[in-house]
Amino acid sequence: MKFQIQSQLKYRIDYEATFIFNFSIAKNAYQKVISEELEIKPQMKIEEYISPALRNRYLRINVQAGNLEVNYRATVELCYVEENPNSIREVPLDVLPLDTFYFLYPSRYCQSDRLMSMANQEFGDLLPDYSRVTAICNWIYNKVSYMSGSTDSNTSAYDTATERAGVCRDFAHLGIAFCRALNIPARFVSCYAYNLEPPDFHACFEAYLGDRWYLFDPTRLVSQKGIIRIGTGKDAADVAFATIFGTAELEEKNIIVQLLDNQSLSNTVQAIAIS
Amino acid sequence: MKFQIQSQLKYRIDYEATFIFNFSIAKNAYQKVISEELEIKPQMKIEEYISPALRNRYLRINVQAGNLEVNYRATVELCYVEENPNSIREVPLDVLPLDTFYFLYPSRYCQSDRLMSMANQEFGDLLPDYSRVTAICNWIYNKVSYMSGSTDSNTSAYDTATERAGVCRDFAHLGIAFCRALNIPARFVSCYAYNLEPPDFHACFEAYLGDRWYLFDPTRLVSQKGIIRIGTGKDAADVAFATIFGTAELEEKNIIVQLLDNQSLSNTVQAIAIS
Amino acid sequence: MKFQIQSQLKYRIDYEATFIFNFSIAKNAYQKVISEELEIKPQMKIEEYISPALRNRYLRINVQAGNLEVNYRATVELCYVEENPNSIREVPLDVLPLDTFYFLYPSRYCQSDRLMSMANQEFGDLLPDYSRVTAICNWIYNKVSYMSGSTDSNTSAYDTATERAGVCRDFAHLGIAFCRALNIPARFVSCYAYNLEPPDFHACFEAYLGDRWYLFDPTRLVSQKGIIRIGTGKDAADVAFATIFGTAELEEKNIIVQLLDNQSLSNTVQAIAIS
Amino acid sequence: MKFQIQSQLKYRIDYEATFIFNFSIAKNAYQKVISEELEIKPQMKIEEYISPALRNRYLRINVQAGNLEVNYRATVELCYVEENPNSIREVPLDVLPLDTFYFLYPSRYCQSDRLMSMANQEFGDLLPDYSRVTAICNWIYNKVSYMSGSTDSNTSAYDTATERAGVCRDFAHLGIAFCRALNIPARFVSCYAYNLEPPDFHACFEAYLGDRWYLFDPTRLVSQKGIIRIGTGKDAADVAFATIFGTAELEEKNIIVQLLDNQSLSNTVQAIAIS
Repeated sequence: MKFQIQSQLKYRIDYEATFIFNFSIAKNAYQKVISEELEIKPQMKIEEYISPALRNRYLRINVQAGNLEVNYRATVELCYVEENPNSIREVPLDVLPLDTFYFLYPSRYCQSDRLMSMANQEFGDLLPDYSRVTAICNWIYNKVSYMSGSTDSNTSAYDTATERAGVCRDFAHLGIAFCRALNIPARFVSCYAYNLEPPDFHACFEAYLGDRWYLFDPTRLVSQKGIIRIGTGKDAADVAFATIFGTAELEEKNIIVQLLDNQSLSNTVQAIAIS
Repeated sequence: MKFQIQSQLKYRIDYEATFIFNFSIAKNAYQKVISEELEIKPQMKIEEYISPALRNRYLRINVQAGNLEVNYRATVELCYVEENPNSIREVPLDVLPLDTFYFLYPSRYCQSDRLMSMANQEFGDLLPDYSRVTAICNWIYNKVSYMSGSTDSNTSAYDTATERAGVCRDFAHLGIAFCRALNIPARFVSCYAYNLEPPDFHACFEAYLGDRWYLFDPTRLVSQKGIIRIGTGKDAADVAFATIFGTAELEEKNIIVQLLDNQSLSNTVQAIAIS
Repeated sequence: MKFQIQSQLKYRIDYEATFIFNFSIAKNAYQKVISEELEIKPQMKIEEYISPALRNRYLRINVQAGNLEVNYRATVELCYVEENPNSIREVPLDVLPLDTFYFLYPSRYCQSDRLMSMANQEFGDLLPDYSRVTAICNWIYNKVSYMSGSTDSNTSAYDTATERAGVCRDFAHLGIAFCRALNIPARFVSCYAYNLEPPDFHACFEAYLGDRWYLFDPTRLVSQKGIIRIGTGKDAADVAFATIFGTAELEEKNIIVQLLDNQSLSNTVQAIAIS
Repeated sequence: MKFQIQSQLKYRIDYEATFIFNFSIAKNAYQKVISEELEIKPQMKIEEYISPALRNRYLRINVQAGNLEVNYRATVELCYVEENPNSIREVPLDVLPLDTFYFLYPSRYCQSDRLMSMANQEFGDLLPDYSRVTAICNWIYNKVSYMSGSTDSNTSAYDTATERAGVCRDFAHLGIAFCRALNIPARFVSCYAYNLEPPDFHACFEAYLGDRWYLFDPTRLVSQKGIIRIGTGKDAADVAFATIFGTAELEEKNIIVQLLDNQSLSNTVQAIAIS
């Protein structure tokens, strides 16, 4: 499945500012970047840093006052793994790979430590397999309203559990927090998504089950087969598409995700892994 | 129904301290204090203040370093109103008595403003009558664990909605917050309670329905017919049994509630009002 | 000192809604309402409720879908008390009037219980008199940025102590919380204010010192001699200028405060009481 | 400088539990583990995992109901770097090593995003060098009371900024949060410490300045020359000395840190780096 991504960001900067961008598509065994192009106006030095463990691609740009325009274009081929969800189990703690424990610990926006009772009260009796994470996603979908502008960069899973409104990032944070509270490693995925309306950056999460990380998206806004990973982290703090040191106004954000194959992306009943 | 209450508090005070006690039984049309006795050791000046609207009885005592022992004994007759819950409706906002609106607003421990979505999501579709408040109490009883020591004086309804553990005061705060979020006036009741195990001060709440305030106790620890009101307030901040300005250690607390009539207090299916 | 107030509110209502307004000028010994006029378009029933203790004037209006316009005009004479601040002392807890203790307890937006250490750490060594409350106001003025839109209806003193940005209501909440944490009764005052730029409703607070309530305004936006009280409460939850049950959009808010006397309102070095 | 560490932990476990321990001394260029011994009673399988980036050493032990005793003994030689603090500068964002940005982002216990205004308001005008981090430590030392038992595993920098009481971990979290809010990378260090009274695990933090990470300890409880690193992380969530999945009671904790050289550890005015 091939996709073409176009991502355009326009900023107005008042003073000097440093940007750490994280909008480049992650390169891993499950998604192959066929071509890629980055254009910055005005032209300036760009430094790329790829984090060793999670392979996130961070770009640093130091900008003077004025306008900044970033154009990123990429063609990517997804080679996700599809599996029958019925055969996927949670992994007991005594055999869980030790490098996944890091994703059991609470983080800025996913205070799993404070959601232990709630998670156990709501999901503790369910079978310890893929379907439990699906139940978490259903709970979020049914109980939390998707409302643009209802939350801000301060909103965390602890808030969303009670305030019951949010956007994709809040849905993902709550899913992650519930999973961790149940001893299921879970982490944040920032992404592009095919057929997202209105087009924008997107966020979902993945949980470690069986022997790999499976994608989950409690928003139900897109097919998981159309998710193109940008970054992976404990939560949104690690993989913001732009972390700005200084003040800058985002004046325009244009995202286009096109399916290049002559196929349609039907929703799947399969479990999808892309990392 | 007559009860005898004995309440003994022993403190060790390091420096001078001022106590505001609120352990005296409220006097109103629904509960008649037949006799009452208060003994303070060492003997000292006591000032009583009765708040005009809610008739809470506050005692001020200024204490020097040393020991303080308070003994309160009272005999009270309860004349609660019993009604068939099926005939009790919520009151629409356009005819709700204006002096009850005060109990719709959020307070320190009952942040109903932040629980609007959750309350509507969980209880919004239920019939607007007595049974909806019962449903709130059932939800709390089923989803929140009663655990001594699980919370502290900082814990609020917003926390309990998520952390799902608490004591009587937390149960009451959450019930109040949910009610207010649904436009049902609700307020905190501190009380003595017959057959409470282990004996202690107790807390529940009341909601304004039909034409009066009805008692609710989501803990299910005692019969509502055995609740003897001390104080009424927006939440526990208003009616702590002891507010201490200074440092003092509570060394002993002994509460005895006895039923004087030759009757037993069966649980009731009636709605009970005592204010 | 005579002022004329004009207050115009225009709402667009989608469905039926109930409004509790609190914009009428409080009537007490310190401010005499000479004339007053209220016009509602479309014409409809208005009910007024005056809270017994604090004399807040609440109006209930039940509105159908459509437009609502409220016009309130009043002429008021202020007879504030001016005193030399140097002679005003805090009142020790053993002689503090018992009806002021209510304003020592924490409330929704003024969690004085959580600010005890901070208040004592910052202000504990200061002289226990009027100048200590002034020091609190100076601290807030110097450390908190006045920024429109930086906070919302959920923001409390606990947040502002750390986040250091807010509007008049946040400044007042923090002042109140610090005072209570130091055992100084303090309460919220919603008001009109002469020379406020841009014109709007305003908020400040008052602290009980000596034998009365003195006004304090940490925003330094207006002269305390030009403050015309609307409501008094534990915090903003009690005296919102409009509490709306239902959804309504405030489309216009026009406030005009004029000084009728041929005088100018110089800033004062006196302590001002208006309740 | 050589130290000998003895660390003994005794637990009572009710049911099966999984422990992730992080009490082994980190091995890096600045501290050389000369000898090391680990004994578990009853004998059982131990798995060690060393995190790739930060070299934290995690041990997994799966335990049945009963008693668990862990004895860890190690001899370590510290080869810290000492430098004149006056020559150490903060690093501008445009040249800051890209692998340190990760430690600028907020985390579970260090919500630097919410402390931006406060940090800038308190420390924004100071010179951007080592002395600014010292000023942060002084602020914490002077304004926050060190009080055993005043906080719990839920307490974060956001709380400590206001509540002004805590233990070593809270002091470190607040230092980290302030640094990050000022664009200084900062991270949590769990450690053993020589001459700590009473003996216990300890926590401090390090900030990236000049071209390396320098240690800071706002508690002033120990000399930085006597700090033996265990773990490094975004905050305490990453490097708890024991993360217990299940319920277990810590019945005994005995820590002994001895200086093996015939030297005394005077306090230093030098900047110390051990990573």
